Amino acid sequence: MVTYIAGSGAIGCRFGYSLAKNGKDVVLLDNWDVHIKAIQENGLKIVGDVEDTIQIPIMYPTEATREADLIILFTKSMQLENMLQEITHLIGEGTKVMCLLNGLGHEDIIRKYVPEKNIIIGVTIWTAGLAGPGTAILKGKGSVNIQSLDESGVEKAKEIVQLLNESGLNATYDENVFPSIWRKACVNGASNATCALLDCTVGEFFGSENGFNIARAITHEFVQVGLASGIALDEAEIMAYVEEASIKAAHHYPSMHQDLVKNHRPTEVDYINGVIARKGPQLGIKTPYCQMITDLVHAKEAVLAIR
Amino acid sequence: MVTYIAGSGAIGCRFGYSLAKNGKDVVLLDNWDVHIKAIQENGLKIVGDVEDTIQIPIMYPTEATREADLIILFTKSMQLENMLQEITHLIGEGTKVMCLLNGLGHEDIIRKYVPEKNIIIGVTIWTAGLAGPGTAILKGKGSVNIQSLDESGVEKAKEIVQLLNESGLNATYDENVFPSIWRKACVNGASNATCALLDCTVGEFFGSENGFNIARAITHEFVQVGLASGIALDEAEIMAYVEEASIKAAHHYPSMHQDLVKNHRPTEVDYINGVIARKGPQLGIKTPYCQMITDLVHAKEAVLAIR
Repeated sequence: MVTYIAGSGAIGCRFGYSLAKNGKDVVLLDNWDVHIKAIQENGLKIVGDVEDTIQIPIMYPTEATREADLIILFTKSMQLENMLQEITHLIGEGTKVMCLLNGLGHEDIIRKYVPEKNIIIGVTIWTAGLAGPGTAILKGKGSVNIQSLDESGVEKAKEIVQLLNESGLNATYDENVFPSIWRKACVNGASNATCALLDCTVGEFFGSENGFNIARAITHEFVQVGLASGIALDEAEIMAYVEEASIKAAHHYPSMHQDLVKNHRPTEVDYINGVIARKGPQLGIKTPYCQMITDLVHAKEAVLAIR
Repeated sequence: MVTYIAGSGAIGCRFGYSLAKNGKDVVLLDNWDVHIKAIQENGLKIVGDVEDTIQIPIMYPTEATREADLIILFTKSMQLENMLQEITHLIGEGTKVMCLLNGLGHEDIIRKYVPEKNIIIGVTIWTAGLAGPGTAILKGKGSVNIQSLDESGVEKAKEIVQLLNESGLNATYDENVFPSIWRKACVNGASNATCALLDCTVGEFFGSENGFNIARAITHEFVQVGLASGIALDEAEIMAYVEEASIKAAHHYPSMHQDLVKNHRPTEVDYINGVIARKGPQLGIKTPYCQMITDLVHAKEAVLAIR
């Protein structure tokens, strides 16, 4: 059974490493030339909790030829559709496509390229970083929750849970994964764009009552839109989760900070706060905080001439 | 007749210079030691449209002794109350106190120290900068509109208009100055905090549709709160004014940018967007944009440890 990691940045490398290390047939796909070259020449280097180097195949999506049994999508949100277009030749009748991207609404894009019965949606709280091309920083523990979008895919999804667990990835089949996806989106919605705009860590942002006020107001909008979309969410429980996550990630700069502030790259805000700002008005819910934070990030992207 | 400039930063120096240059008895008051020393030793230097140096008295507020005929308040908003406390000994029965500060609600603070009949409120669109201690940069033209808070003070206020006009400051007595004060507050409300947060010029902020969206939403909140406070405002006219001002000031970094980004000093946001965020809920008006921008600026001040 061949598994592709479609989008082999930091978190993609973590999943690829865990699968390969446990003897699974896994291929990394990416479009970052120096990263590909580094792994092809020197193997994938791992630093952090363990130091290791592993030989693992990596190539451009268009270079892959074997039809996939499983594709795990780990692109940036805005690269998702382009990646799907580049891997259509790998998607067969029985290929399962699993999306663990941050953010909301990715299934709407995947449905354009994959039949509903083969889509698996999920969320992971594993994290990872890159020390540079070809070198992943793996620290801490995590987990994965997944669900087949269609009832007919449950059995196969449970086999994938087993595959992930044999690779130490701590996976669970979840009868209703959407609340978990939204819970994580709330964490990202409260912290990512705000830390990017204020050029600060999660702990610094939550360190003032003003930061907390913003986090609360953004979370409120996410929960209102989620509830109106039929997702079972408990605002008090989610706010407590967001707060707990902010303590765990206190010294962390969210990925959107790295994109906007460090690397001057476009951000994923349209797939986090931007989703709420678009869906809210459609559902008759006011979402001024998500609208403003989305506009502020895009205005900053325009100032930096990256939009 | 002795006039004090209470707060002799850039714009205070402009007014002081214009009055002194036209033979008026004017004294600058400030608490910035290097600035005071520079002007005492070398005179007030003017650069920009003209190059000039003028001898003009400057001292700490507590050093001044002559009872004032007129005091023109030009402090930062958050220094206003402290300045009023430091100059109470200069305020006599007939002393007029004129406030030309940016922002809203300063009259509520002044009323604690000055009888209503002696308060003159106004707005100026003159601008100025400082090249360093003792050197003011004066470019462009401007005007002043003022009004006596109390009917009994109108005649004296018109004499002050004359004094200002004799000094080339282009003043007008305005039967209803509050719409002009609010109009300028809208310009500051739309641009100052936003340019500070995004580290950009006014032109860069208004250069994207996203920036424009934010400016429009903030202006809408200002106008709603103004209308509910009994100020005659026309939203379309004000939005056009805000846009026009953004074109004129396209290459300009607002003062709040200089405070937050360049000098890491606390900002005046509580006297601009913060006023709307406080007054809105009291009047039953939702002001999420002004609340969020105020919280974002304060959160950034906290990150910089200047709050």
